[in-house]
Amino acid sequence: MGVMGVPMSVLIKDAWVVTQNTRREIIKADVYIEDNLITEIGKINVEADYVFKEKNMIVIPGLINTHTHIPMTDLRGLADDVDLEKFLEKMWKLEGQRSRDDFRIGAEMGIKEMLRTGTTTFVDMYSDEDVVAEVAKKMGMRAFLGWAVVDEDITTQEGNPLSNAEKFITAYQNEDLITPLIAPHGVYTCSEETLLKAKEIAERYDTLMTMHVSETRKEVYEHRRKTGKRPVEFLNDIGFLSFRLIAVHLVWLTLNEIRMLAKNGVKVSHNPTSNMKLGNGGSMPLPELVKENVPVTLGTDSAVTNNNLDMFEVMKFAALLHKNERWDASITTAQQIFDMATVVAADALGLKAGRIVENHLADVVIVNGAEPNAQPLRKDTIISNLVYSLNGLNVMATIVNGRIVYDMGNYPET
Amino acid sequence: MGVMGVPMSVLIKDAWVVTQNTRREIIKADVYIEDNLITEIGKINVEADYVFKEKNMIVIPGLINTHTHIPMTDLRGLADDVDLEKFLEKMWKLEGQRSRDDFRIGAEMGIKEMLRTGTTTFVDMYSDEDVVAEVAKKMGMRAFLGWAVVDEDITTQEGNPLSNAEKFITAYQNEDLITPLIAPHGVYTCSEETLLKAKEIAERYDTLMTMHVSETRKEVYEHRRKTGKRPVEFLNDIGFLSFRLIAVHLVWLTLNEIRMLAKNGVKVSHNPTSNMKLGNGGSMPLPELVKENVPVTLGTDSAVTNNNLDMFEVMKFAALLHKNERWDASITTAQQIFDMATVVAADALGLKAGRIVENHLADVVIVNGAEPNAQPLRKDTIISNLVYSLNGLNVMATIVNGRIVYDMGNYPET
Repeated sequence: MGVMGVPMSVLIKDAWVVTQNTRREIIKADVYIEDNLITEIGKINVEADYVFKEKNMIVIPGLINTHTHIPMTDLRGLADDVDLEKFLEKMWKLEGQRSRDDFRIGAEMGIKEMLRTGTTTFVDMYSDEDVVAEVAKKMGMRAFLGWAVVDEDITTQEGNPLSNAEKFITAYQNEDLITPLIAPHGVYTCSEETLLKAKEIAERYDTLMTMHVSETRKEVYEHRRKTGKRPVEFLNDIGFLSFRLIAVHLVWLTLNEIRMLAKNGVKVSHNPTSNMKLGNGGSMPLPELVKENVPVTLGTDSAVTNNNLDMFEVMKFAALLHKNERWDASITTAQQIFDMATVVAADALGLKAGRIVENHLADVVIVNGAEPNAQPLRKDTIISNLVYSLNGLNVMATIVNGRIVYDMGNYPET
Repeated sequence: MGVMGVPMSVLIKDAWVVTQNTRREIIKADVYIEDNLITEIGKINVEADYVFKEKNMIVIPGLINTHTHIPMTDLRGLADDVDLEKFLEKMWKLEGQRSRDDFRIGAEMGIKEMLRTGTTTFVDMYSDEDVVAEVAKKMGMRAFLGWAVVDEDITTQEGNPLSNAEKFITAYQNEDLITPLIAPHGVYTCSEETLLKAKEIAERYDTLMTMHVSETRKEVYEHRRKTGKRPVEFLNDIGFLSFRLIAVHLVWLTLNEIRMLAKNGVKVSHNPTSNMKLGNGGSMPLPELVKENVPVTLGTDSAVTNNNLDMFEVMKFAALLHKNERWDASITTAQQIFDMATVVAADALGLKAGRIVENHLADVVIVNGAEPNAQPLRKDTIISNLVYSLNGLNVMATIVNGRIVYDMGNYPET
């Protein structure tokens, strides 16, 4: 294997390349990576610092996980089989006792799992994102890190969450792999004032925002009781909705609210596995969001509500949840779902990635097509296999920004 | 690694052992296997022909897949995103052109995948089960093989399906790993006469039966239009229901029908992933079946409707489907679901297996607890991890009937 995390030229020989280009071509080809870019695809005869030449390789764009809480990974399995309310109660108690060292341990565990399972970029929401930033940089992971903000009178952080977020953004705004953003937690933890101040910070520093929105019926109906408005209506009316926002969950939406999201250019992170596990009921109205051209991406949510960080599994849950919900097997297709985890997410984050195309970022995953669950290996069923049959442990190697960060059991040192 | 498929004594050192005994204990221990039995669990200091001594091993009972169509595995991905009706139309066309050689290729592929992903026993439904029997014997897989029966005037088999089934049962009734049974396909392909003749054969040779029942609304309402009765009511009234029957799917059931199943000792195979992928709508009433003490087991269904044969994934889909359907995160628990894939299924099939307990069949799976998705490895979250986080590719080794049949990439020869 190559030297972990070190810049070098990489050549992948004779693989099925799932390009995700505009024609969604799948071709048998070599892929050449230099510095942090995919520089050539085709029949390539050059020397490279490191060559992948196993048989039955499938090369795909690195998967993009648009919602998690990575420092919680070491809490996996500690709050199963309870609803969101009881979950939050349990978690906030547990998390109150945790230190920045614990967050670092959780983040290392989570980033390791994401690299192992073919995720090359993630969007996080947590306090102390500076800890996550240091781990992500060290492990070579591309990270969009949203400093969580709640009202000052309910925070357990030291200092004011808004100014902490601002401090984090200014400290990390010129990093290569790290993109800082601000993450108001939800309408039940952030006042109108907090939300608008958060938006102001996002505008001042030209960052994205991410926020939990309309995850449960309880959230929606309590907010309506308090304000007379459903959460998205409320966020629309106070002027919070924006192209900067990645709104997470959106399980309980009206068509009117979907049009508000569309009009304001809001992006969505769909977390089907977590929603199902928490018994939120219903399901995010994917077909209606797609019809109104709202970009829908995929997220795992934390390892406590999922309970893994495997984007392959999320793709399958996303596809099957809606087929089941609508009594219609054709309501989702494998290609549509694979797009959500690659091109749609890359575009939503403003990344020149999500595709195996020349001059795009070398965020590249090599999948082992020799495992029985990938057989038979036929060009016309590769997308089907990626979404419906394979899982993250089929990944042989993960390359982020041109650096090999996972290769057959080996990870960068932490 | 040991010599594949050959009898030998096996010692597994210092593993987390998920016993599935009556107290559902998980203990740190060694496990000793001699001939085809688990002979000792505890601190063991004996010589063995082969020793597993990796760190972070989790030993679980082999998983039991109670419904698939294994010769179809090589058709993976060829009929996605369509409902059952269109699926069957497509499949029957494809399958009409297939030979016994094709069935053998599909069966080898499927059994390889099951051994790789920790399944030690499966229940199959197909024509030409003699082909499957030969492959299963060769690969060392425990197999309950149901010769599919449809009405004589619609069969594509040579000869009469009922007498073919009978011939198969007599030929394989004294095998060690193979248990033959009869498998009427469904109420829409079998007349009352065919069903009762199938039952007669099962009684004559003292075998089990398996059958698709109430998979879709269409099946239920068409049957009611034709006969005035829903499928289970009909099967009850003609005297078909029996402790011999493993009824598959049962997505569309009334409480009255559940009580008919309970009264007659019928066992159920729940196939959540396949049901969701086909957009059957609704979901099998798991809580009500459990309340009436109907044994519910789990199946993958074929690789064309799932699209893999990974029982770990099926466990997660089973747990999450019902949480989502009932808007209640507590409606299923990890332990309940793990039981369905082990002890409940073993008991339903009359196997002294499904447990890591002395003098039980050595159908044993070693899971790699060192992978990131299994971390942290804590006794109190092992069951949670098995159901909610791991997948079949976490399996390091699979032992069936005391023989090592999968070990870190190595399989028996075919």
